[in-house]
Amino acid sequence: MFKQNEVEIVTIGDELLLGQTVDTNAVTLARELGAIGISIVRRATVADTADAITDAVRQALARTGTVITTGGLGPTADDLTRPTLAALFGRALVRDESIVAALEALWASRGRGGALPASNLQQAMVPEGAEIVPNPEGTAPGLRLTDGEGRSVTMLPGVPRELRAMLQQSLVPWFAARAGGTVLRTRAVRTTSIAESALAERLGASKRSVAGLPLAYLPGMEGVDLRVTARDLPPDEAAAMLDEAERLIRDAVGVHAYATDRVTMPMVVLERCAARGETIAVAESCTGGLLGARLTEVPGSSRVLLGGSIAYHNDVKVRDLGVSPDDLAAHGAVSEVVALQMARGVRARTGASIGIAITGIAGPDGGTPDKPVGTVWIGIDVHGDARAHRAVYIGDRQEIRFRASQAALDLVRRRLLEREPVGD
Amino acid sequence: MFKQNEVEIVTIGDELLLGQTVDTNAVTLARELGAIGISIVRRATVADTADAITDAVRQALARTGTVITTGGLGPTADDLTRPTLAALFGRALVRDESIVAALEALWASRGRGGALPASNLQQAMVPEGAEIVPNPEGTAPGLRLTDGEGRSVTMLPGVPRELRAMLQQSLVPWFAARAGGTVLRTRAVRTTSIAESALAERLGASKRSVAGLPLAYLPGMEGVDLRVTARDLPPDEAAAMLDEAERLIRDAVGVHAYATDRVTMPMVVLERCAARGETIAVAESCTGGLLGARLTEVPGSSRVLLGGSIAYHNDVKVRDLGVSPDDLAAHGAVSEVVALQMARGVRARTGASIGIAITGIAGPDGGTPDKPVGTVWIGIDVHGDARAHRAVYIGDRQEIRFRASQAALDLVRRRLLEREPVGD
Repeated sequence: MFKQNEVEIVTIGDELLLGQTVDTNAVTLARELGAIGISIVRRATVADTADAITDAVRQALARTGTVITTGGLGPTADDLTRPTLAALFGRALVRDESIVAALEALWASRGRGGALPASNLQQAMVPEGAEIVPNPEGTAPGLRLTDGEGRSVTMLPGVPRELRAMLQQSLVPWFAARAGGTVLRTRAVRTTSIAESALAERLGASKRSVAGLPLAYLPGMEGVDLRVTARDLPPDEAAAMLDEAERLIRDAVGVHAYATDRVTMPMVVLERCAARGETIAVAESCTGGLLGARLTEVPGSSRVLLGGSIAYHNDVKVRDLGVSPDDLAAHGAVSEVVALQMARGVRARTGASIGIAITGIAGPDGGTPDKPVGTVWIGIDVHGDARAHRAVYIGDRQEIRFRASQAALDLVRRRLLEREPVGD
Repeated sequence: MFKQNEVEIVTIGDELLLGQTVDTNAVTLARELGAIGISIVRRATVADTADAITDAVRQALARTGTVITTGGLGPTADDLTRPTLAALFGRALVRDESIVAALEALWASRGRGGALPASNLQQAMVPEGAEIVPNPEGTAPGLRLTDGEGRSVTMLPGVPRELRAMLQQSLVPWFAARAGGTVLRTRAVRTTSIAESALAERLGASKRSVAGLPLAYLPGMEGVDLRVTARDLPPDEAAAMLDEAERLIRDAVGVHAYATDRVTMPMVVLERCAARGETIAVAESCTGGLLGARLTEVPGSSRVLLGGSIAYHNDVKVRDLGVSPDDLAAHGAVSEVVALQMARGVRARTGASIGIAITGIAGPDGGTPDKPVGTVWIGIDVHGDARAHRAVYIGDRQEIRFRASQAALDLVRRRLLEREPVGD
């Protein structure tokens, strides 16, 4: 009676209605379930009240038969999902000793003294007959209630890390068994340092599909992702069509394409450096550590990144990186000569094979007619061949800083491509 | 019959259900409307189909009487909001000459040659009797339909920039006139380095309100925010109740409360340092620049942050920070002695009054039974008084790193509080 590959999401929490939290779980659920052919056909966001939760879940069950709720499973009194849905399904709340034991073990492992607080024990009260969905990352287990007609609601916590872990460990296998062999898959070719309109001209301005798959332009701070979507196809067929679409997009876009799907620019640069035996050091002024933070986000980055200098104050540029005080006075910190000296200086100091320097005006203050807010000089020293690049980024302080870090890494990527043997 | 200060949102678009777009409009609408006393009581996200749109809007009108839709107003065939809601309200679509004129003027002003494309003229077809909501930022005007019982649906485009402009220019005044002078306001007391369950015990485990205002616990990577909400009150009365609630929460929570609302820990630490004339230098191993990046996100941080060292590789710890190679060999990089030497070293090197060092195991690899993944040593040197602190954070690599940066700043905040004269 209900389609086995459709689900509705009910998101519970005042903070989402009040605009205090951006709902990233919605994205996680859609991507992970979409990859195994499950469509989210509707999503509702409701307040932390029993009436609102009951109403939304009842309607979703009537329409679609399969519901996932997120949020409201914590230990405090405003966590109403468990008692409310127990009542909707006509079940009593009973204490589950396996959850009690797990909570006590977790409490002890975190080195907290004394007995588990009573409020945490709330989380061991589960509706009679509920399946427990293990939570490897936190104290609130998930729960699944199924009625006599096969309609089910799966309750997950709202904490993104916990939700992701439970999705991968329990929900994806459970739903995959129901999806009947077809998938919904997407492929994104990631580009940077090229405008959306320029991409559209390369791909054919009116083009809304590639290799028969719908095409979307997704601009963001990292660049523009070009995404195609294959729906309701067997996995092999979807993969072949996505491969063909990716090939056509890459042919049109050329060197601007730096990665596929969720591979990031730091991953690309680190991998390429590791393969060539290159090491990196960074010298950051306006980005203040952001470039280093993005590189070290990637596990294993210590094989490539030696470290570097956060040269925010000019004294640090002079002392740590050997920037000339005279050049600072004559040209300012945001200048070609200073960017070059920073890149050379951090490379010399650390012994890295590649030095990356960023110096710019991130705003909101500090701009001049000559050097408006957004002006950034990037210096790249590869094996002693140092070059500087100027750009003016639009956006707020965070966007300017992020775009500068992205451009710096892209420049390293292109410098390494230049050094590859032809045909590599 | 319906409350004049409640609204439901219906968000229309496959891309949101597919997880390809994060719904930032939800946050914008909630904040702007909340500030004038309008509560969003429910939000639904539905696909680009006439059935789904009709069903969601009909239910929302029946429950709440006032609905805002976003999305589906563009010029292409998958933009169904206009014809679908015209049909729901029993109205014909008629051509609006004022919209035609505006579209033609916009087309000409953008320097596009020739006549307006026919697809754009779709946007001039409006339901009979609809009010037009001007769109100063794009081609798709908004529309409002009202039925004989005063129920209304206001249709807005999904483009965030257009939605923001229309909200401020047209919707906020329209809703403010209905809200009758009452407001919806929230206040969050931000805490860190204390568990949600421990906060609940301090506040009274079963406490769901403070000073008569409902209380919510909002855990996140920065800590737990405690939020109270005042609804349907005149602005003065709401402010007084929020002040009282904040006072009671701060009394219960004590030193764990570091800020209010959207003030961040880096802002708190930078402001406190600036007021005291302190300067900061950072020495980052596992965080790789994240602490510096968070501090320099704040405009004006250059008054306090001098810079520092990304000491990812041990050679950099030795050369830049004067860490002892013998201690590195004997105790490892993640140790009390190395954290202390890093903090002292970066302070000495830069001349800052405060040195902050972070060294830890962010994972996913590198953990040992003695030092599991998540183990972090933080060194804080304030005017030569250096102390080290150990913690074990749970979560993935990003969370461990972020929590370490938050804890390091919180330790600085507490050290500065110790130094304040009593009563300050």
